[in-house]
Amino acid sequence: MAEYRGDAAELLKKAGAAPGDLLEVRHAGNLYTGVLMPHHAFSGPEILTLKLASGYNLGLRIDAKTQVRVLEHHSPQKASEEGLPHDPAKPAVAVLGTGGTIASYVEYRTGAVHPAISAADLVRSVPQLSELCNVCARVLYSILSENMRVAHWQNLARAIAEEFQAGAAGVIVPHGTDTMGYTAAALSFMLKSLPGPVVLVGAQRSSDRPSSDASLNLIAAARVCVEADLGEVVVAMHAGPSDTYVQLHRGTKVRKMHASRRDAFQSINEAPVGEVLDGEVKLRPEHRPRSAGPIELHERMEEQVALLYFYPGFAPEHLELVAQHTKGIVIAGTGLGHISEELLAAARKVTHRGLPVVVTTQCLNGAVNLHVYETGREMLAAGIIPGGDMLPETAYVKLMWALGQTSDPAKVRALMLDNLAGEYSQRREL
Amino acid sequence: MAEYRGDAAELLKKAGAAPGDLLEVRHAGNLYTGVLMPHHAFSGPEILTLKLASGYNLGLRIDAKTQVRVLEHHSPQKASEEGLPHDPAKPAVAVLGTGGTIASYVEYRTGAVHPAISAADLVRSVPQLSELCNVCARVLYSILSENMRVAHWQNLARAIAEEFQAGAAGVIVPHGTDTMGYTAAALSFMLKSLPGPVVLVGAQRSSDRPSSDASLNLIAAARVCVEADLGEVVVAMHAGPSDTYVQLHRGTKVRKMHASRRDAFQSINEAPVGEVLDGEVKLRPEHRPRSAGPIELHERMEEQVALLYFYPGFAPEHLELVAQHTKGIVIAGTGLGHISEELLAAARKVTHRGLPVVVTTQCLNGAVNLHVYETGREMLAAGIIPGGDMLPETAYVKLMWALGQTSDPAKVRALMLDNLAGEYSQRREL
Repeated sequence: MAEYRGDAAELLKKAGAAPGDLLEVRHAGNLYTGVLMPHHAFSGPEILTLKLASGYNLGLRIDAKTQVRVLEHHSPQKASEEGLPHDPAKPAVAVLGTGGTIASYVEYRTGAVHPAISAADLVRSVPQLSELCNVCARVLYSILSENMRVAHWQNLARAIAEEFQAGAAGVIVPHGTDTMGYTAAALSFMLKSLPGPVVLVGAQRSSDRPSSDASLNLIAAARVCVEADLGEVVVAMHAGPSDTYVQLHRGTKVRKMHASRRDAFQSINEAPVGEVLDGEVKLRPEHRPRSAGPIELHERMEEQVALLYFYPGFAPEHLELVAQHTKGIVIAGTGLGHISEELLAAARKVTHRGLPVVVTTQCLNGAVNLHVYETGREMLAAGIIPGGDMLPETAYVKLMWALGQTSDPAKVRALMLDNLAGEYSQRREL
Repeated sequence: MAEYRGDAAELLKKAGAAPGDLLEVRHAGNLYTGVLMPHHAFSGPEILTLKLASGYNLGLRIDAKTQVRVLEHHSPQKASEEGLPHDPAKPAVAVLGTGGTIASYVEYRTGAVHPAISAADLVRSVPQLSELCNVCARVLYSILSENMRVAHWQNLARAIAEEFQAGAAGVIVPHGTDTMGYTAAALSFMLKSLPGPVVLVGAQRSSDRPSSDASLNLIAAARVCVEADLGEVVVAMHAGPSDTYVQLHRGTKVRKMHASRRDAFQSINEAPVGEVLDGEVKLRPEHRPRSAGPIELHERMEEQVALLYFYPGFAPEHLELVAQHTKGIVIAGTGLGHISEELLAAARKVTHRGLPVVVTTQCLNGAVNLHVYETGREMLAAGIIPGGDMLPETAYVKLMWALGQTSDPAKVRALMLDNLAGEYSQRREL
């Protein structure tokens, strides 16, 4: 972790304060109480970062008048214990770490990525979690989410099933935000009869940065696990300009829509399935409640699937080459799901060989409709499967899953057209 | 064109009214004046469609009390003349038809697509155009926009240059909406020193449907050509819930973000360059004014470019196969522009062979930043070109264009990093 320098280091040294200590800071006429976070390399040397009780990281630009008092020293012994507090009256919530910014501290400084902290450390860094539930935390992986593969999704699904079988009220999955939507979709198809929520959480700002969204998202996820009658896979991420609002997005409908903003995640083609606002969980009537169980695990997936993005000038040979190495193809077409005549000719050859070809829309919003234009009708006649308002990414994951369940083309087609995990919205626009 | 049936046919017959006639319709206590549109196959037999003076298509559900009176008969002789009204006091505006819904009338009924009406017919169907300017209309193509190719963009750019050389105040390009963003980007790079605006317009509802946006968009485009000090390529499309609001999107920043809504088009990562509200054109200070000319045409493009969409499990062989058949590759990465380790290894081989590889973000909003995470730094070290906040589609078109200008890899790289046509926004988020 980065060290404080200059005036800040001096002030902290005088007060005998170190990262992890609970401090009272008197600054510019205000009194702040919070845990001292490690210095963040993106901040200037004069910035102190305090994690407030709300989980919000506050950056204070100290001056000559700033006063610091230690309320409680952080005990390194305590922090290095793997055991977390246990209260038999509280429900059990599992935290299955996979890596990502939410579990990263120092990557910004050294250049090396360190998805380093353990799930237990992550939980300890947010004491509110232990007030809500008994947390059982373990690290499954420490990888960058762009390196996730089918095997990771499968291991994760199995671990989630184990946690529910062991009595967890819900499972939290800290995850890198880049491919969180893909993992959420994969878990949505793999896990049925969920006795509780599976909540993926991430952070767009790492935990040691001011205005990190890590704690907010984690606390909201824990509330959902403990309080909500929800039996589906959701993504819980910060939304809107305030620091207290988290939206719950259905795993099959969520997409990262901004490269860097904290409120990057959106439900596409439907409203979020719920929200956590000022600590209160609210669900839309459309949510799926907890199942009586037992949880079902259908983790088989065919890895040889490709997602192709159509554009003017798309070389039909490109589709033919890819088709030789895959068992199924998803195309993100234009508008209502269109592709060019010459790509259609290539796709027709592929479908005639029995390979499923699914079309979605690169507009993301709205639905495929192959009945409006001649191109669409020719695509239907060629056996191309219309993906409705499924996200291209969700259709890709679903096709991998469908091909893992059956090799019968008619059954694959039926699975793709069926609404299995809310991947087709209620309000389809035709 | 579809014919009216049943009660509507009876009522129209009694009044001696036919499509194209100017009618006065007394209905449910209101008096409407407008041109009778052909029956639309999506409407019931009892619906009359009137095109009002505003250009808005109104669907009236007739009943026994509805009264129809012909104010002016449509003259088929007049309509079949190719010549359009000419007033030497008014500026010249060229309309170059390419096809698409805006030029389609009857495709919905028969199933066959008929991008049939001539540009002259299109202009005649919107009499307000001739009040604003002398329209010179010609059809370049009648194709579905998903079948556009580089050669179409090049012919179109040449035709636009000719029109400006012949003294046009502006050029309107009716275009299918599916790939309008790609064509707008291509024209933005091909045409420099524009003496006036090039305005692409489309329609999400064909001209014969109630609530068609065709006329609104066309009239707004004409206003921009005549009134605005604008020297760039823009897309003029309906926006918001009202029927009077058109936004002007910069050709390199615009994306179709909904499959079917009329307000489907959005500027990504910046505000629209202007708007037309209630007939008044307003431009943001960031717009590029008309050039003194002469117009420059740089239409050369390399067609062998591919746009690849990254996802977890993307097979590196897929990139290698495509690279063997292309001169350059754009990748839509996750988040800040990331790809997996194994795809990076494949991309490194490709860049070492001298092929440009550009990375953009599939989040669409926000910018690529390869300095935050280790993955990004490795991508930079591999020679991958960061695409900033360029849209993936714009980066694809720009790479085709850059490779058409030079075969020197260093110059291609420099062109890709330069802001040539507003493809990088002022407010880049790093």
